[in-house]
Amino acid sequence: MNHNLHIFFQPRSVVLVGATDKSAWSQLIHGNFGAMGYDGQVWLVNKRGTPAHGRAAVTSCRDLPAVPDIAYIFVPTDAVREALEDVAEAGIRHALILSSGYAEAGPDGTQKQDGLIAYARDKGVTLLGPNSLGFINYVHDIPVSPFPVGKEYLRGHLAIVSQSGATTNVIANFAQQQGIGLSYAIATGNEADLDTARVIDYLAQDEATRVIAVFAETIKDPAAFRTAARKAAAAGKPLIILKVGRTELASQLAQAHTGSVTGDDRIFDAVCAQDNIIRVTSIEELVVTAGVLAHTGPIEGGVAIISISGGACEVIADTADLAGLALPPFAEATRATLQAVIADYGAIFNPLDVTGAAVRDPSLFERILTILAADPAIGLTACVYDLPRDGGDFVDRTALTCIGAGLAASKTPGIMINQAIRPVSAFSRNLMAELGIPAVTGGLDLAVRALAAAQRWSERRVRKGKADTGLSRQAAITSARPASEYETLIYLQGQGAPVIQVERAPTADEAVEAWRAIGGPVVLKIASSAIQHKSDIGGVRLNLDSEVAIRDAFAAIMTAARAAYPDAPIDGCLVAPMRPVGIELFVGIAQSPWGPVIVAGLGGVWIELLADTSLRLLPIDETEARAMLDELRARRILDGYRGAPAADLGAVAEAMCKIGNAALALGPDLVTLEINPLLARGDEVEALDALAVWRDG
Amino acid sequence: MNHNLHIFFQPRSVVLVGATDKSAWSQLIHGNFGAMGYDGQVWLVNKRGTPAHGRAAVTSCRDLPAVPDIAYIFVPTDAVREALEDVAEAGIRHALILSSGYAEAGPDGTQKQDGLIAYARDKGVTLLGPNSLGFINYVHDIPVSPFPVGKEYLRGHLAIVSQSGATTNVIANFAQQQGIGLSYAIATGNEADLDTARVIDYLAQDEATRVIAVFAETIKDPAAFRTAARKAAAAGKPLIILKVGRTELASQLAQAHTGSVTGDDRIFDAVCAQDNIIRVTSIEELVVTAGVLAHTGPIEGGVAIISISGGACEVIADTADLAGLALPPFAEATRATLQAVIADYGAIFNPLDVTGAAVRDPSLFERILTILAADPAIGLTACVYDLPRDGGDFVDRTALTCIGAGLAASKTPGIMINQAIRPVSAFSRNLMAELGIPAVTGGLDLAVRALAAAQRWSERRVRKGKADTGLSRQAAITSARPASEYETLIYLQGQGAPVIQVERAPTADEAVEAWRAIGGPVVLKIASSAIQHKSDIGGVRLNLDSEVAIRDAFAAIMTAARAAYPDAPIDGCLVAPMRPVGIELFVGIAQSPWGPVIVAGLGGVWIELLADTSLRLLPIDETEARAMLDELRARRILDGYRGAPAADLGAVAEAMCKIGNAALALGPDLVTLEINPLLARGDEVEALDALAVWRDG
Repeated sequence: MNHNLHIFFQPRSVVLVGATDKSAWSQLIHGNFGAMGYDGQVWLVNKRGTPAHGRAAVTSCRDLPAVPDIAYIFVPTDAVREALEDVAEAGIRHALILSSGYAEAGPDGTQKQDGLIAYARDKGVTLLGPNSLGFINYVHDIPVSPFPVGKEYLRGHLAIVSQSGATTNVIANFAQQQGIGLSYAIATGNEADLDTARVIDYLAQDEATRVIAVFAETIKDPAAFRTAARKAAAAGKPLIILKVGRTELASQLAQAHTGSVTGDDRIFDAVCAQDNIIRVTSIEELVVTAGVLAHTGPIEGGVAIISISGGACEVIADTADLAGLALPPFAEATRATLQAVIADYGAIFNPLDVTGAAVRDPSLFERILTILAADPAIGLTACVYDLPRDGGDFVDRTALTCIGAGLAASKTPGIMINQAIRPVSAFSRNLMAELGIPAVTGGLDLAVRALAAAQRWSERRVRKGKADTGLSRQAAITSARPASEYETLIYLQGQGAPVIQVERAPTADEAVEAWRAIGGPVVLKIASSAIQHKSDIGGVRLNLDSEVAIRDAFAAIMTAARAAYPDAPIDGCLVAPMRPVGIELFVGIAQSPWGPVIVAGLGGVWIELLADTSLRLLPIDETEARAMLDELRARRILDGYRGAPAADLGAVAEAMCKIGNAALALGPDLVTLEINPLLARGDEVEALDALAVWRDG
Repeated sequence: MNHNLHIFFQPRSVVLVGATDKSAWSQLIHGNFGAMGYDGQVWLVNKRGTPAHGRAAVTSCRDLPAVPDIAYIFVPTDAVREALEDVAEAGIRHALILSSGYAEAGPDGTQKQDGLIAYARDKGVTLLGPNSLGFINYVHDIPVSPFPVGKEYLRGHLAIVSQSGATTNVIANFAQQQGIGLSYAIATGNEADLDTARVIDYLAQDEATRVIAVFAETIKDPAAFRTAARKAAAAGKPLIILKVGRTELASQLAQAHTGSVTGDDRIFDAVCAQDNIIRVTSIEELVVTAGVLAHTGPIEGGVAIISISGGACEVIADTADLAGLALPPFAEATRATLQAVIADYGAIFNPLDVTGAAVRDPSLFERILTILAADPAIGLTACVYDLPRDGGDFVDRTALTCIGAGLAASKTPGIMINQAIRPVSAFSRNLMAELGIPAVTGGLDLAVRALAAAQRWSERRVRKGKADTGLSRQAAITSARPASEYETLIYLQGQGAPVIQVERAPTADEAVEAWRAIGGPVVLKIASSAIQHKSDIGGVRLNLDSEVAIRDAFAAIMTAARAAYPDAPIDGCLVAPMRPVGIELFVGIAQSPWGPVIVAGLGGVWIELLADTSLRLLPIDETEARAMLDELRARRILDGYRGAPAADLGAVAEAMCKIGNAALALGPDLVTLEINPLLARGDEVEALDALAVWRDG
């Protein structure tokens, strides 16, 4: 399974361009090869061919004995172009550039960067950087980076990708401190060529990598990112991301730092929801969540937690509620079996306080955990206990052994949880190996949030697997270009969306005829593509149910419209049946750098003052549409309020999908499509008004 | 300054009742005295006078050479009563009980506990526990606890109080891991006698203690707790609390664990807001926040943060926004001075990315931090950098020295922030001492949240200092007992609350007369203390402005009321002026275990479906009332919506205070008082309807 970045991230030979004893960077980069025991070739190049780090050097990559797999360029910025030319002419096809002073330094730097990348593309050189602190391949002991690898490092299944080099190092160090083994740490820098998406794409097929943790300031190529994220998901590898730029200030900072503009943060949240990406808000959460998932893989069911501390159980209960972790009650059979083991206890909760009884009789840990792992609703067992860090800590080997045996008793994954976050030292890891403790995480707060994220990820994975066989992902583009309210409603109807019956009435006679045809009270609305806020100018009359009323209303509307818009083309009125009170929703479609998005909300104050909306990228399926409705702060109004019956959420969701697909079919020239309101009365759901706006329209 | 718990927590002699080589508890408890180097007397008592732990023992406390300051009882539960009697009869006036099996074990245990406490009170013995894992006094090296103190412990200014013994130990260990020195760790257990409130009261006057961190499952005595919290605040000591029971499950667990019933969590949030208590949600947050405040004390102004990592700056900006940390922009003069030092940089933000330039020239750390500390808006400077943990870490002594000098350059407190949370080891602390680094915290997420909490605490401290000279804290109790709508409105008016003009009209003639007196359109409402939902039965008629209309309405209301409530006493109608559309608020007062609370919200869907309310304990001042309005999710509606002009928040807040004081004056027999609506149109604020409900009423 050789990916096209296989040679890039697993080079058998490296040339360091700019190697010199005088540079701390050069010392650190070179030193790492020895520290890690890299068994490939390392060559040095510098301007004068001066030996460095106790090795010979040459003045050009063309003078090397063979063509290296990769070049790491860390010469001064002004000399980068020349160095890259030398690299390309020597036939090297992979290069990293550490040097900075490019897009992150302003417009001049961006121009320089564009020049570099154009040259590299022309020569077929794949680039990481500029402004990249390189990568460390822990699996094959290949450190192409100045970050000190340290004497002991833990190999494992977590890959780290970060635009910020310093942050790459912080994340990698924190993971190692917490005993989490790494496969890769990759700093993508300015991403002039290789970007986060392409690196994820590589890691998605990398055998050693099971979980991918990303720190991102911006997503350079949204479409490629989504494709890579789906590839990781398809490979069963959770993608966890700390993306900054939630705030205006962070966006400004990101622009100053790597010269990139961050997108609308809400759209990124939608991408995460739809592509099953776990979004976190701190470095600690990124690493702890990754560590949990690297151990558990997908969790099939709820989580059962036990502790000898009642206080810990209470903290877990509160935190689980906030984080959305499902701690299901135990099955009747489980409870009965537990009662036999722990007869003294009162009520049996999840989390389960096993009390000091387990201190006196540590075998209870194993017996209780084994019982819980067998509960059909439980997909993971966890035991709160503190893993010793060093010889100074009190070590209860019997208790730890029983906990380990209980956690490892069945196929259901098990994990120990430290009460407050603490390092998982070499001492800790040796103890785990010796006493059979399968995994550890913590503290309570981070562990519960990580478990909640793992649970959500696992559930979505199952759901997505089913859903992707459902709705088609892309509607065919039509040549339709509806503009007026009438055309838009008729177009939506043609696409299968539920739309109110609506008749065109250029004259009062035709309005009367439409009223007769409808057979009940009607609404008259001005029909003019030039008039948008119809009510404001007196262009709407409600509840008309006689010929006189219709004619009066028609005349009044014409007069009002001509007074307000003397030059507007007016096509008479639209006539539609009068509907009783219902729940008014807003559904809108708009374009974004990530593609067309659909926005839903409740009408009135909710949209106008409180911007209470939810958002997804199109297309959506009905499950996603239901999730959008559930996210609304005013969600409960959909259950019915003040005379409006509860909305049938399935019918609303179906309408949203149909509207979304209809919008997609209109192609990229559609700027916005608004349905306002989409009226819901029980399972009667109808678009009462609609408007499409076109580019150049 | 000898507190009445002075001897309890600083005993010069201790008797261990139940000492035996066979018990792990006994070994641990006894061992701690040696480990800590306790220089007072330790005596042992057990049933047979068997020597233990290499010491002699006697069979009764009465046989000891002197009366010990305190007794720690850890005999089996069945023997506790007898042991306590022996303690009391020996003249010992302070005792701890470790033994469990009391209120936490169910009704039988509660009865046993009640018996113990009645006996102790009778004999004048102050008790900690039962079910208490004791306390450690780090300041005077007095460990009356089984928790292993460890070889090296850090003395300092943080006191820990916790009902859960295991959690006390977790918090203390985590604080020590993070390099935070302790004054006390006190496990209060079942709190049959001494409770969290009394311990806080002690710590508020303890010289060594600067910050108090509490883990609480329940607050046993709300009034005493508030008094103690205010005492701590008055002493300038932040009180930080992790209180569980946010959720129903956690409440149930707390009850099972310590036999206590937790109160309404929202009321506790109000207590925290009003008494300037910092509420946190995790053990890590509890300790990190305490550590920051132990170093900084009150922060006078905004926070300035610098980092060499752009990624860190972005994480800080996002986290600060979520946590509410004010990172004020720098003053013009500051920016000019900075530009001179760091001419190459682009825009100057706070947080400030000092880039790799500070790696090349570490003196920049000192110069920049010194400049920022001088900014008039800045009350604390912070520098993001990683403090080495052990000899294996890379140590840049020059950079660390420059950071230390910059942080300590002025009276403005300064603190270093680790990027991800890591232990502050002995190695770290030695380096800090050697290189002059005043304090360290971290990681970014916890540090930013801790700084935000410290900032809020400091601001509230200043505000409370001013506010307490304002409104009187307690209104005099009146003998009034208003019941009907009319009486309640008139009572409120008499107390200075703004109330609509309202006239009683037992007959239609009087209604017409009232309409004439009012001089404009009026509202007629059924007047009957037995009819609460007036509109529902047709008991309200709006916008009446002719004699005929008044008479018709009066007759219709009487007919409707009699039909709906044939037996209700009816006093005719109330007549009030018709008001134009405005913003309808709800203001209610209710009793709680914490005392009377005031609840405010917007009318309609906000209350009915979304329970969008804010809550405080009475009395409140106008600043607190304003804060209540600002907390509403639908706050923006107060700025005006659909024809209703913006509400004058000052006028609304004043009305809320007047209503609150009027309710307090009604005394404890008032069950509820509801004003619904309180109508706001600009600065016209009026109660349109009101209802008081009385105990036995």
